Amino acid sequence: MTDSTDVSRFPTPALDDLPEDVRDRILAVQEKSGFIPNVFLVLARRPDEFRAFFAYHDALMDKPGNLTKAEREMIVVATSSPNQCQYCVVAHGAILRIRAKDPLIADQVAANYRKADITDRQKAMLDFAIKVSGEAYRVSEDDFATLASHGFTEEDVWDIAAISAFFGLSNRIANVTNMKPNPEFYGMGRG
Amino acid sequence: MTDSTDVSRFPTPALDDLPEDVRDRILAVQEKSGFIPNVFLVLARRPDEFRAFFAYHDALMDKPGNLTKAEREMIVVATSSPNQCQYCVVAHGAILRIRAKDPLIADQVAANYRKADITDRQKAMLDFAIKVSGEAYRVSEDDFATLASHGFTEEDVWDIAAISAFFGLSNRIANVTNMKPNPEFYGMGRG
Amino acid sequence: MTDSTDVSRFPTPALDDLPEDVRDRILAVQEKSGFIPNVFLVLARRPDEFRAFFAYHDALMDKPGNLTKAEREMIVVATSSPNQCQYCVVAHGAILRIRAKDPLIADQVAANYRKADITDRQKAMLDFAIKVSGEAYRVSEDDFATLASHGFTEEDVWDIAAISAFFGLSNRIANVTNMKPNPEFYGMGRG
Amino acid sequence: MTDSTDVSRFPTPALDDLPEDVRDRILAVQEKSGFIPNVFLVLARRPDEFRAFFAYHDALMDKPGNLTKAEREMIVVATSSPNQCQYCVVAHGAILRIRAKDPLIADQVAANYRKADITDRQKAMLDFAIKVSGEAYRVSEDDFATLASHGFTEEDVWDIAAISAFFGLSNRIANVTNMKPNPEFYGMGRG
Amino acid sequence: MTDSTDVSRFPTPALDDLPEDVRDRILAVQEKSGFIPNVFLVLARRPDEFRAFFAYHDALMDKPGNLTKAEREMIVVATSSPNQCQYCVVAHGAILRIRAKDPLIADQVAANYRKADITDRQKAMLDFAIKVSGEAYRVSEDDFATLASHGFTEEDVWDIAAISAFFGLSNRIANVTNMKPNPEFYGMGRG
Amino acid sequence: MTDSTDVSRFPTPALDDLPEDVRDRILAVQEKSGFIPNVFLVLARRPDEFRAFFAYHDALMDKPGNLTKAEREMIVVATSSPNQCQYCVVAHGAILRIRAKDPLIADQVAANYRKADITDRQKAMLDFAIKVSGEAYRVSEDDFATLASHGFTEEDVWDIAAISAFFGLSNRIANVTNMKPNPEFYGMGRG
Repeated sequence: MTDSTDVSRFPTPALDDLPEDVRDRILAVQEKSGFIPNVFLVLARRPDEFRAFFAYHDALMDKPGNLTKAEREMIVVATSSPNQCQYCVVAHGAILRIRAKDPLIADQVAANYRKADITDRQKAMLDFAIKVSGEAYRVSEDDFATLASHGFTEEDVWDIAAISAFFGLSNRIANVTNMKPNPEFYGMGRG
Repeated sequence: MTDSTDVSRFPTPALDDLPEDVRDRILAVQEKSGFIPNVFLVLARRPDEFRAFFAYHDALMDKPGNLTKAEREMIVVATSSPNQCQYCVVAHGAILRIRAKDPLIADQVAANYRKADITDRQKAMLDFAIKVSGEAYRVSEDDFATLASHGFTEEDVWDIAAISAFFGLSNRIANVTNMKPNPEFYGMGRG
Repeated sequence: MTDSTDVSRFPTPALDDLPEDVRDRILAVQEKSGFIPNVFLVLARRPDEFRAFFAYHDALMDKPGNLTKAEREMIVVATSSPNQCQYCVVAHGAILRIRAKDPLIADQVAANYRKADITDRQKAMLDFAIKVSGEAYRVSEDDFATLASHGFTEEDVWDIAAISAFFGLSNRIANVTNMKPNPEFYGMGRG
Repeated sequence: MTDSTDVSRFPTPALDDLPEDVRDRILAVQEKSGFIPNVFLVLARRPDEFRAFFAYHDALMDKPGNLTKAEREMIVVATSSPNQCQYCVVAHGAILRIRAKDPLIADQVAANYRKADITDRQKAMLDFAIKVSGEAYRVSEDDFATLASHGFTEEDVWDIAAISAFFGLSNRIANVTNMKPNPEFYGMGRG
Repeated sequence: MTDSTDVSRFPTPALDDLPEDVRDRILAVQEKSGFIPNVFLVLARRPDEFRAFFAYHDALMDKPGNLTKAEREMIVVATSSPNQCQYCVVAHGAILRIRAKDPLIADQVAANYRKADITDRQKAMLDFAIKVSGEAYRVSEDDFATLASHGFTEEDVWDIAAISAFFGLSNRIANVTNMKPNPEFYGMGRG
Repeated sequence: MTDSTDVSRFPTPALDDLPEDVRDRILAVQEKSGFIPNVFLVLARRPDEFRAFFAYHDALMDKPGNLTKAEREMIVVATSSPNQCQYCVVAHGAILRIRAKDPLIADQVAANYRKADITDRQKAMLDFAIKVSGEAYRVSEDDFATLASHGFTEEDVWDIAAISAFFGLSNRIANVTNMKPNPEFYGMGRG
């Protein structure tokens, strides 16, 4: 296992010491990705939080719905950037490139989504995600109307808001724990 | 069941239509509290998110640890106030009054925790919780040292950060869904 | 008299040492309320400021006009909350509950007036009060037009602005002096 | 009398229509200054507010105390500048130049008091005044200690805070009413 | 030569030690103005930066175009004020008074351009300049359309943006170097 | 030549129409890099600004001095990220990777330099660069002392400040013109 200082400022548990379900999830992602994303190792030291975190993640990112997988990742990258979450910007930037099959999109969205090569509908989606992330207390029926004018249903609005809110949690955990992006993420999907 | 417009801007499911585990959790809280806190009804329409949300909640709020139950609720109230989350300030204000057996503490913490009748150690805890909520990207080893000087362990720091982060998620969901605090909360624990 | 540390970080004068008009005003409010709100004791040590403060207060809060007494208190609570003035949120929250004969309204307005059970006209009033409090330099004719569309006259606009501005002063004095809300305020008007 | 549009967006009363005490105050300032500063005309339409405003002003600006007259005006100019109050920056800039017998000081303090040709003690005074103006909820015993280290008593601290708070009120009224500085102020005290 | 502490916190070179083109430029401005504006002395210690800075300055401020000389100076004063650049507010305030032949305009624009005696078209120009200065990443086609509605061409928009951006650079250099405005500037153009 | 909409919202001149010195500079960079970075094409339509911009750029980025070439690019990336300048983050991210011979550093610095694998001295350098970019008016002798404690000379401080200030200008021009990063930049230096 890698030197834990490359993972986080908190100690990382040995896989053998983990509860079976947690270890299984980690081994499954390792098999699929070829490496263990550090978020799994950082959270594994707290199995109950690990289980809840990934259950929430899957409930939002793997559910059926009108938002494409790439659009969900766009929300993650666009909101994690002003939250200055190095792990989320780098790791989900990689996933966004892969989901969108576009080697340029993640760096564009991270730097300034308003100037990215995405649709106006996607920009409206990200405007709302950013508003939820930064000043959810100002969200009003006007926002629902704007999103409806771009074809988003009320369930889509919930999805956008919940993804923004969930990764806001993730951004804060990553920043407090000094979670480091695995080196593999930086180059993935760059074509 | 109450008029759903008193609960949230999203429709609220009938209890009979819910998956059994979700319904059981709701009935259990109703039996214990005498009413169903609206957060359960709002999230129940999305059972997977409901399950993950409350699993995360319980993992942070019911776990053993050095932070008292009252201190955990202080974190919720102190961070939900600048996030302007009406549901969380009112509902967790009630729980804080009960946990702390203090009818004044919640309104003090919600208005300005720096002026509340709490210990310096608790103010340091809330300073950090607010920093995590508002600018986690600036958290550094200096914050860990300050907290250690007040007797907080690294596990305590994780707890404070995770509670702040989790209720940041909750605040955003509540604001987007217009989640309304049940009338029962306002007067609870006022002695 | 209560321990002065329960009142403010500045020493509180004995009633007998006060000029007669100041003492009379304090005794009158004590007779009416059953206790002396701490703002009177804190300011009494500077009689000229005491007189000017309450003259200004009365000129705005007791004058005839289109804004109801409850609406004026809403402005106080809504603007004192982002200013994090514990004294004003708690004390005027109590007065708001009494004026509005509504045990829930003050906590709603303090947490997020945009989600409170008040009219759209009242939300427009509070939007403007918050703008005056936070960025009066951006107030323009557009604000007057918006308020007119809700039926507010130019005199009403002055009233809203002046109440917001006056309690902004009060919020700052209370925060610098560590003015403590009397325990009596917390439960008043909760029905 | 000047065209009222040169005074404020609200109509200005004729001197003859004012209560005698208000008119007398205005005539006295006119005799002393050679013109009527617009703040008197703008507020005169509401005599009770006029009386309270100037009583408060005098209680803070004319009282005995350790702060010099020039230092009190420095506080006004330094806090009115970030509040973008054109009337207060221009009118009190003039008074500051006269009080300090320094033709350059007001423009320096208005632009960036940290770079002004004033003492370190005065910069500490203005740091505190700006903190009271912008984030009084963060004021703590540390601020009192810093000010004490520069020789300020607790009464001086109250004075600084109250002047900052009072002119915060004044700044908001002036911005909402579009109060215009009289042309005379711009050149006064420039030597 | 004046005491260099009146110029900047960095040492100021002797004119004789400067490259000939730099010295010639300085002597030319001295001949024209009657004194050497301190920005020339501060930058002269780095001749390559001096040359580039003034070449950029001249390319924007002396070029032909639809913006009048006075309007260009308005942009400088309006954007330098929130950047709290004492040198730029004072020095370009003087130039603005002279260009506009108006002794009051600079203090008005510095304090709050929204309340200045300028045209609506000029206020729209300054709204955009302030947006470029403070949050250029939000500039969008809507801004170009608003400016077009006031008669600004796309070249004018570039001019406004570039002047705002260039003086943003200048504001930062002046603040870091403690560049002092020459006493001569304060009274120039006051009529 | 590429479709100008891939370059900027402003039309891009044909190379043949450019003044010889401007064209020569562009051809030189094309020969060295294999492509023409869009900033050259966007600015070329205004030759005087082009010349001043690149003269300033070269005076800061190519001059001798204690800051390494990689450190200068770190400043560009770290300050361009909160300014949300897509062009600068992507283009200078590429140059940073090459200068530092490190495929990971640019994405780390862009996301949150406080968590990047750089030295404490470099973090202090970037703390200062960010302060100059965001609130230069607060820069004080304390900042010079902090930087000196990390071994930076006063000339180094000027270099850091000037690079931060110059790219602040560049960020604003790029955002207003919708300057697009060339596709070549995204993958450069990723090893």
